[in-house]
Amino acid sequence: MSVLDNIKIVLVGTLYCGNLGQVCRAMANMGLKNLALAAPNLDGDWELAERFAVHAQDVLRNRVEFSSFRDAVAECAVVVGTTVRSGLYRQHVKTPRELAPALLEMAAHGKVAVAFGREDKGLTNEEIACCTHLLRIPVDTGYESINLSQAVLLCAYELFSATGEYQPPIEKSDPAVAARKLQLTDMWRNMLLEIGFMKEDKADHMMQGIQRIFSRGVYSDDDVSILMGVARQGQWAAANGGKEPKD
Amino acid sequence: MSVLDNIKIVLVGTLYCGNLGQVCRAMANMGLKNLALAAPNLDGDWELAERFAVHAQDVLRNRVEFSSFRDAVAECAVVVGTTVRSGLYRQHVKTPRELAPALLEMAAHGKVAVAFGREDKGLTNEEIACCTHLLRIPVDTGYESINLSQAVLLCAYELFSATGEYQPPIEKSDPAVAARKLQLTDMWRNMLLEIGFMKEDKADHMMQGIQRIFSRGVYSDDDVSILMGVARQGQWAAANGGKEPKD
Repeated sequence: MSVLDNIKIVLVGTLYCGNLGQVCRAMANMGLKNLALAAPNLDGDWELAERFAVHAQDVLRNRVEFSSFRDAVAECAVVVGTTVRSGLYRQHVKTPRELAPALLEMAAHGKVAVAFGREDKGLTNEEIACCTHLLRIPVDTGYESINLSQAVLLCAYELFSATGEYQPPIEKSDPAVAARKLQLTDMWRNMLLEIGFMKEDKADHMMQGIQRIFSRGVYSDDDVSILMGVARQGQWAAANGGKEPKD
Repeated sequence: MSVLDNIKIVLVGTLYCGNLGQVCRAMANMGLKNLALAAPNLDGDWELAERFAVHAQDVLRNRVEFSSFRDAVAECAVVVGTTVRSGLYRQHVKTPRELAPALLEMAAHGKVAVAFGREDKGLTNEEIACCTHLLRIPVDTGYESINLSQAVLLCAYELFSATGEYQPPIEKSDPAVAARKLQLTDMWRNMLLEIGFMKEDKADHMMQGIQRIFSRGVYSDDDVSILMGVARQGQWAAANGGKEPKD
């Protein structure tokens, strides 16, 4: 049971089944399961809805329909409205990133709805009046009209990110420690001398360039093993036909 | 000129014109203009591409096509690959949020490409090998397959957010200062006594509940003006027919 299970996405007066399907997939990507449709006004292309939902068919099939926005959010203590319009009673909007932690906290104690209006005109003033919080997605002022499923995705992404549930892949190889990196540098110094990349009297200077390259990022033990292998093979090649240093 | 102008989105082997159109819109939402197609494999439904691009037709029309990924990124100092697959050479992935500030810094000095693979199988190992950085979008482990345009949107959103270019709407009314809020509380105390909501001996206690309500959020001057208006009108109503306190 995740705190996200207490959050539902409410689509109000949605027009296009294609958007509905893409909303389902976006929700599944971000661990959200509960979808409500309030007074849907859909074009009836359910085949497209299913196709765009891809493997998120369960979200699509488990949707709950309500005849009005009021009914859809009746059980919710927190009702978040999303808006791109401004106006006297829409000035106190927050971004999804600002609001997400508070919404998760509230979802731990009661039901939270996040509502998205019609593709062509969003939520009405009456619907905004039912909301306890208002969200506005930060977009470029040159092009503010965002697709419905894209808007849902961004809000869902901020909620999912705020849970901290995402686990980045763990590198199987540990970061290499200093002693091993110094050993690597020594091996490269010897190899570079033997293959004739540099002469002894220039070696200190040249090795600073190599060290700069080696210090561009954190190397793993595996990275160091690969570079040590290069040094060993270079030395072998030099012993079996290396060239004299160029002047 | 925004630093985002030095970033281009590269779609590799894209199959569906619908996705292409939605990518254009998502890019425009987040202030990105430069789109490259590398070895596109499109279904040819350009009408759908234009319809889904909505008002982002300029992004669609200004796309540049290349016969290979290598050609598409040839001029870029930084090439970011996106991947959902894991594997020995994909372990050092970062999230878009982690990487965005560094990418903007690098875009100030040279061209940056952010590449997205085929809808069905992503970027190949050969293409990953051309990348200087790898990105992985944090998604729920239950459903990791994300739509192409949704993936582009999230990466573009993190880049746009990291620019700090988004300006939240400014409330026209300042936050109310303490003196004005105390005046409001006094007016409500008088009004609540006069309309018979409470008796004088209970007033201190009752007013703590009212003050708790008033302290739930930051009120603006406009908010306080509305609540002062309620107090004035209540007192007027009481003077013209108020009731005695109930016991």
